[in-house]
Amino acid sequence: MKIIIVGATGTMGTYLVKALENEHEVIKVASKGGDISADITSTESIENMFRQAGAFDALISTAGPTFVGPWSKLNNETFRNGVEGKMMGQINLVLIGQKYINPKGSFTLITGALTDEPQVNFANASAANGAVEGFVRAAAIELENGIRINAVSPTVIEDSPQYFPYFPGEIPTTMRQLEFMFRKSVFGKITGHIIKP
Amino acid sequence: MKIIIVGATGTMGTYLVKALENEHEVIKVASKGGDISADITSTESIENMFRQAGAFDALISTAGPTFVGPWSKLNNETFRNGVEGKMMGQINLVLIGQKYINPKGSFTLITGALTDEPQVNFANASAANGAVEGFVRAAAIELENGIRINAVSPTVIEDSPQYFPYFPGEIPTTMRQLEFMFRKSVFGKITGHIIKP
Repeated sequence: MKIIIVGATGTMGTYLVKALENEHEVIKVASKGGDISADITSTESIENMFRQAGAFDALISTAGPTFVGPWSKLNNETFRNGVEGKMMGQINLVLIGQKYINPKGSFTLITGALTDEPQVNFANASAANGAVEGFVRAAAIELENGIRINAVSPTVIEDSPQYFPYFPGEIPTTMRQLEFMFRKSVFGKITGHIIKP
Repeated sequence: MKIIIVGATGTMGTYLVKALENEHEVIKVASKGGDISADITSTESIENMFRQAGAFDALISTAGPTFVGPWSKLNNETFRNGVEGKMMGQINLVLIGQKYINPKGSFTLITGALTDEPQVNFANASAANGAVEGFVRAAAIELENGIRINAVSPTVIEDSPQYFPYFPGEIPTTMRQLEFMFRKSVFGKITGHIIKP
């Protein structure tokens, strides 16, 4: 299977590349480094990325910039970090990528527990996640040629312990759980699901 | 109670104004007409509206422009209808309005069943709703001075029968149910809830 991993050099992406590259053709996409560089906040850059990658069977996204910081700093400008990054960046990967993906291919986007379980400092991510999850459910009934779409929604990631203090009481998602959640979407048959640990 | 109703001249707003204006001071806000005109896609216009309205106790929003149309027409440009309208328009009403609202005041935004129950042609609304609902849950733990926030999430509205064909099998929300859902948010004590019929 030919799998594009967007955010391939991050904590999640690095793990997923290692987990999948022995059995599959993995195309690593990142803002810097990787096989192809792409800025997901630019539709032109996304289009260029897909042109370079060529037809593919699955896209995995772990790319989700948002504004993290005190509520007093949250305004129309700072909110755009999540709108252009985690929300429209990932939505545009699908709206554009559907022209390049093979029939019966799949898109798997990243959201997170913040959709339903907010934490202080992360309102922008809660909104971006909610948008992506709403989009995933809607896109699942619109995409043609057997193309599927799901979101993986982990809690705080075990290999990012620097975030633990911001997620009091949240049981971390292990890297193995994360890998299996993506495997369920890519190699299973479900569509329109929000996959949780 | 001094209540600002944004979208006061629409189907929902007109009904809510009538239901509330005998017992409360209602400020009608609309893109055209109303007591104050405002364009919720402009932060400057929102700021002007709040300056004219002065301190208030509750804000009700029924304003939610989104792109409605075939999936093939959904792209980064058309998607902005819902991003700037129903999503950021309503989020900015809160981010800006929190400077003007009285302690223990409340914000009540509008979402809809499309968040969780998609229909063909409405992916943009599903995403915008999901964003607003994620934001509402997050804002509820951030807002200070006892200020509350909820969303009202109706199904297709009984007084908008022109939409019934696009929502097969969906039991319409009556205007009375809609009114009571808003009453629960404004006059009750809950915060961070998505209120459904």
